[in-house]
Amino acid sequence: MSAPLYAVIMAGGSGTRFWPLSRARRPKQFLPIVSRKTMIEETVDRLRPLVRADRICTIANGDQTRVLRKLLPRLPRTNLLVEPAGRNTAPSLMLATAWVFNRNPKAVVAALPADHLIGDPARFREKLKAGAEAAFREDHLVTFGIPPTFPSTGYGYIHFEKEDPREIAGQPFHKVHAFKEKPAYDQAVRFLAEGSYLWNSGMFLWRADVFARKLERHAPDLFPFWTRMLKAVAQKSGTALAAVFREIPSISIDYALMEKAEGVLMTEGDFGWSDVGAWSSLADIWPRGADGNAANGEILALEARDCLVYNPRKLTALVGVKDLIVIETEDALLVCRKDLDQKVKDVVDALKKKGTKEYV
Amino acid sequence: MSAPLYAVIMAGGSGTRFWPLSRARRPKQFLPIVSRKTMIEETVDRLRPLVRADRICTIANGDQTRVLRKLLPRLPRTNLLVEPAGRNTAPSLMLATAWVFNRNPKAVVAALPADHLIGDPARFREKLKAGAEAAFREDHLVTFGIPPTFPSTGYGYIHFEKEDPREIAGQPFHKVHAFKEKPAYDQAVRFLAEGSYLWNSGMFLWRADVFARKLERHAPDLFPFWTRMLKAVAQKSGTALAAVFREIPSISIDYALMEKAEGVLMTEGDFGWSDVGAWSSLADIWPRGADGNAANGEILALEARDCLVYNPRKLTALVGVKDLIVIETEDALLVCRKDLDQKVKDVVDALKKKGTKEYV
Repeated sequence: MSAPLYAVIMAGGSGTRFWPLSRARRPKQFLPIVSRKTMIEETVDRLRPLVRADRICTIANGDQTRVLRKLLPRLPRTNLLVEPAGRNTAPSLMLATAWVFNRNPKAVVAALPADHLIGDPARFREKLKAGAEAAFREDHLVTFGIPPTFPSTGYGYIHFEKEDPREIAGQPFHKVHAFKEKPAYDQAVRFLAEGSYLWNSGMFLWRADVFARKLERHAPDLFPFWTRMLKAVAQKSGTALAAVFREIPSISIDYALMEKAEGVLMTEGDFGWSDVGAWSSLADIWPRGADGNAANGEILALEARDCLVYNPRKLTALVGVKDLIVIETEDALLVCRKDLDQKVKDVVDALKKKGTKEYV
Repeated sequence: MSAPLYAVIMAGGSGTRFWPLSRARRPKQFLPIVSRKTMIEETVDRLRPLVRADRICTIANGDQTRVLRKLLPRLPRTNLLVEPAGRNTAPSLMLATAWVFNRNPKAVVAALPADHLIGDPARFREKLKAGAEAAFREDHLVTFGIPPTFPSTGYGYIHFEKEDPREIAGQPFHKVHAFKEKPAYDQAVRFLAEGSYLWNSGMFLWRADVFARKLERHAPDLFPFWTRMLKAVAQKSGTALAAVFREIPSISIDYALMEKAEGVLMTEGDFGWSDVGAWSSLADIWPRGADGNAANGEILALEARDCLVYNPRKLTALVGVKDLIVIETEDALLVCRKDLDQKVKDVVDALKKKGTKEYV
């Protein structure tokens, strides 16, 4: 018997690193930056061959859910779950899992970010299917570890047991020793040298009833909220749910559960993953011309190379420049040195400080 | 008696160096790049305290004259002279001078470009008045020499006699030895070292009847066309004028007359002149912030300096960049290294080659 699989897409993020295209009301998951579709549409599309539409749900705030309704008309409206307040990932995933539990306590939940790129969707589905089987058959929490390509200090790491992986549905699953928070650079270098550390993808699988048991054991402070959520979901009481979210602490699922649970299994997420963290990451994703320029929109480059341009409605002429990010929207223009794209969020902070709401 | 002065504004230029703001139908003189007014409006405004509106005329092609009608509603419509075809400056100025001659052969014509910046308009009028007196009293052609600030290879030079200037209307006038075409760099350096070379401003004064005599003597090939122009102007015959412009050679006034005439007088054009030759020249004209950025439009600069931004309707955020020119218009965006702004015309050439009329 194969596992009944539900996909919970965490669509509540509100990044600022894709300013000026991303705005408070139009975060990264709602942008068509990796293809002509928005990232949330891509995320749903890649699940569809494996997961029925009525088993795909999203979790986001009310404003975002209004956008989701338009972008994802094929999902039942009741599958677009609204979190009454932003309380980080643990409360979100408790709510979504309670919703699944209410339908089928033995169903497997795959908790997936809405704004990651998966280069090889077929491989992703293969891994997801195997992960679901692992979570279904055993009482384990399951996660994907991303093979690191450089000693990143921006991701958490998963320390795993290299020896004796277990094969489930044709994929090797490793025992997780520990989740490690974002390391210092020297530590990250050691992690890569040791070869038993992969990046934490932020993707998790669990059976709904197993999730409840693990929560009771490892997060006793949160467990009473789980019970109240279950009741609110069964009674469809928005008021009761709002009360829970007023009181529940804001905490990530990593910190609340994954880091504490024993017996977590991990399989390698070798499916071309990128979290598309900032503009420069698109330079590796968009097709590039001979001069290394990647553009969404018409460009004319004279002695210009390795630039990233988003300006779909106008001609962009680049003369003598290199390694620039040029992003144009209806009301703002960004010109940024490619290696400084992490500072784009500082632009948003500066705008907020000025009290400007117009461009934020 | 003071000289009856007519100003002829040469408004027929069609530069490409201010692309994407300048277009085939919107050349530099029609752009508000040095102030909130267009350069042609600035040019007329600075003349008005000295020259009556009915003595200011423009010379341009038919399309440009339609624009001029809107920009210069205070000038009599008959003062907006139309050249039937583009034949460089000599035929243009012959036509305009014929128009003045027809009104008053003893009037002085000041031939002035429409797209130069004059930093000190009061000083300019002082010099213009003196120049008009010099042209009126004596049978001389008169010009202004611009004190060079660097050994430019982009301007022509005027070699003048430093000793024994003549004072006319309070200003020293020097005898011109020769007009020199754009020099090689080494020659330009020698010109500056010698101190008896100024830049050719392209501004000239002559009495209409003196112009006719000089033309007859030094440009006998052109003189028959002058006679025909005079007749066409007197008869207000567009057909006759069109016939003249079909046959007349295309030649500059410098080459046709100024370089050949003897007894040309020059006074120093020390009135803050700039021909505003390309985008980077505006970096010295627009006010700059503490970080050296000059902008038309709102900017937010993070570790960015010495950029020039034209983007009046949007916010422009600059991150980590320096010495860039960023110009945004309704349908095009230019990002150009400041020291390569001479290549902007290559962008226009490249667009023409592609057969694109849209952005040209």
